[in-house]
Amino acid sequence: MGKLSQAEFPAALAEIAGRLTLPPGPMEVLVCGMAGARQGWLEAPYLEAPADLRDLAANAVRPDMAGSDLSVAILPGVCQRQNGENVMRGEETQLLGLAALNPDYSGLVCMPGTHSKWAQLEGTRIEHFSTAMTGELFELLKTHSVLRHSLTGPLDGPGRTQGFKAGAADGLERPDDLLGQLFRVRAGALLSGREPDWSAGYLSGLLIGTEIAANRNRISTDPVPLIGSPTLCALYEEVLGMSGASGRTVDATEIVLAGLKAARQHFS
Amino acid sequence: MGKLSQAEFPAALAEIAGRLTLPPGPMEVLVCGMAGARQGWLEAPYLEAPADLRDLAANAVRPDMAGSDLSVAILPGVCQRQNGENVMRGEETQLLGLAALNPDYSGLVCMPGTHSKWAQLEGTRIEHFSTAMTGELFELLKTHSVLRHSLTGPLDGPGRTQGFKAGAADGLERPDDLLGQLFRVRAGALLSGREPDWSAGYLSGLLIGTEIAANRNRISTDPVPLIGSPTLCALYEEVLGMSGASGRTVDATEIVLAGLKAARQHFS
Repeated sequence: MGKLSQAEFPAALAEIAGRLTLPPGPMEVLVCGMAGARQGWLEAPYLEAPADLRDLAANAVRPDMAGSDLSVAILPGVCQRQNGENVMRGEETQLLGLAALNPDYSGLVCMPGTHSKWAQLEGTRIEHFSTAMTGELFELLKTHSVLRHSLTGPLDGPGRTQGFKAGAADGLERPDDLLGQLFRVRAGALLSGREPDWSAGYLSGLLIGTEIAANRNRISTDPVPLIGSPTLCALYEEVLGMSGASGRTVDATEIVLAGLKAARQHFS
Repeated sequence: MGKLSQAEFPAALAEIAGRLTLPPGPMEVLVCGMAGARQGWLEAPYLEAPADLRDLAANAVRPDMAGSDLSVAILPGVCQRQNGENVMRGEETQLLGLAALNPDYSGLVCMPGTHSKWAQLEGTRIEHFSTAMTGELFELLKTHSVLRHSLTGPLDGPGRTQGFKAGAADGLERPDDLLGQLFRVRAGALLSGREPDWSAGYLSGLLIGTEIAANRNRISTDPVPLIGSPTLCALYEEVLGMSGASGRTVDATEIVLAGLKAARQHFS
């Protein structure tokens, strides 16, 4: 979406389709995510939470594909106007996939990433959700803030794990003091000679610990399903464990495919 | 400090001195702040908190000024190794100035800015301090994050005050959920058509409210002295008031001059 103008989407899709081995003839294509944003291909107005995700299909929009063998439906995102304005595009399809694969699941779902989503799911119903800017803040602080001076060099050394645990413990203990604890990255480098790998681990742990602490009282005794990159989900599992809860990582690709399949079943 | 190499400091100081109307002959110059950092003019090793700020003078360092009428002493900053590693350079001199002008003051002092400092002062003793990256985070988010899309345009319109109050209330209420509440800037622009001035006010209020909430239980019934830019201090006064506490703005220039004068009296 960031690189294509509205008019360039059909050709970009045709190019992708051309790379696949598809049977000849007409083909349905189901799309989710930012292609449905206002600045995307064709705006798919948000479904409003609380909502039944089986209604995604009925709210899909169809861009003009005249002259092509492809017919396209773009699924909407979900918005929330009460109890904290919020928006998602793409994650709702993963949530529908989770509900399809685990029909009885009821509880919180965490989708770690640039903008982590936490959703309260009851079967196929999304009751409430929130967004934590955890991943984006990590990148911003690492790249542009005064902390970058302590994060220059090899970040994946042996100190990373130790720093991560220390940061996660601080975040879980004082989530209200994130603004204050962030500066410890800088002070630790100046006063204790903390290396960049330790500092990167600390910052990552601090942010994830703070995020999990803010959601902690909504987590039940069931493991929290985690949908995201395996590396990132493993870190969330670790911090959930430190907080006395637990997580279980779900394959993100499998989930989004299950979500698209489920949405397709609901087209009339 | 960011623009001068070590060798360029003497000439830069001579240039400033040349612009002033000074009596002829030798002149003492007392310097505080980042000139004493490792990457500055000459490193002035930190005084370690808890500390008596009257000891700043005894720990000053003297760069070589051979051939000049100026003799220079650079005051040290203060570091903290226990109960949260931390560092300051420049603020310690303002704190000494506050103590000089208010000899009986005992309590918390807030110094809002890029890196806000909160210091526990007992007369001339600094007992403990912390740093909140509030101002830097505001700039980072406004310039580089996804929130910048909601903060492009005139930021000082009539909605700014209203947004500020809403953000401050949210920050005071849920300081543990800063990562989640930040995204409301974006969602509010998408769903409620919030204008950039409202969004900028909200972000500023949210960050300051979060910062004050994290320090709230250390604030007594006395007004918190605020040392910083008058505009920024007025915002902190407002949010301290919303939290049931109060603040009183102190002239930052007057305070730093009082601090330098007080430090000079302690040179043997």
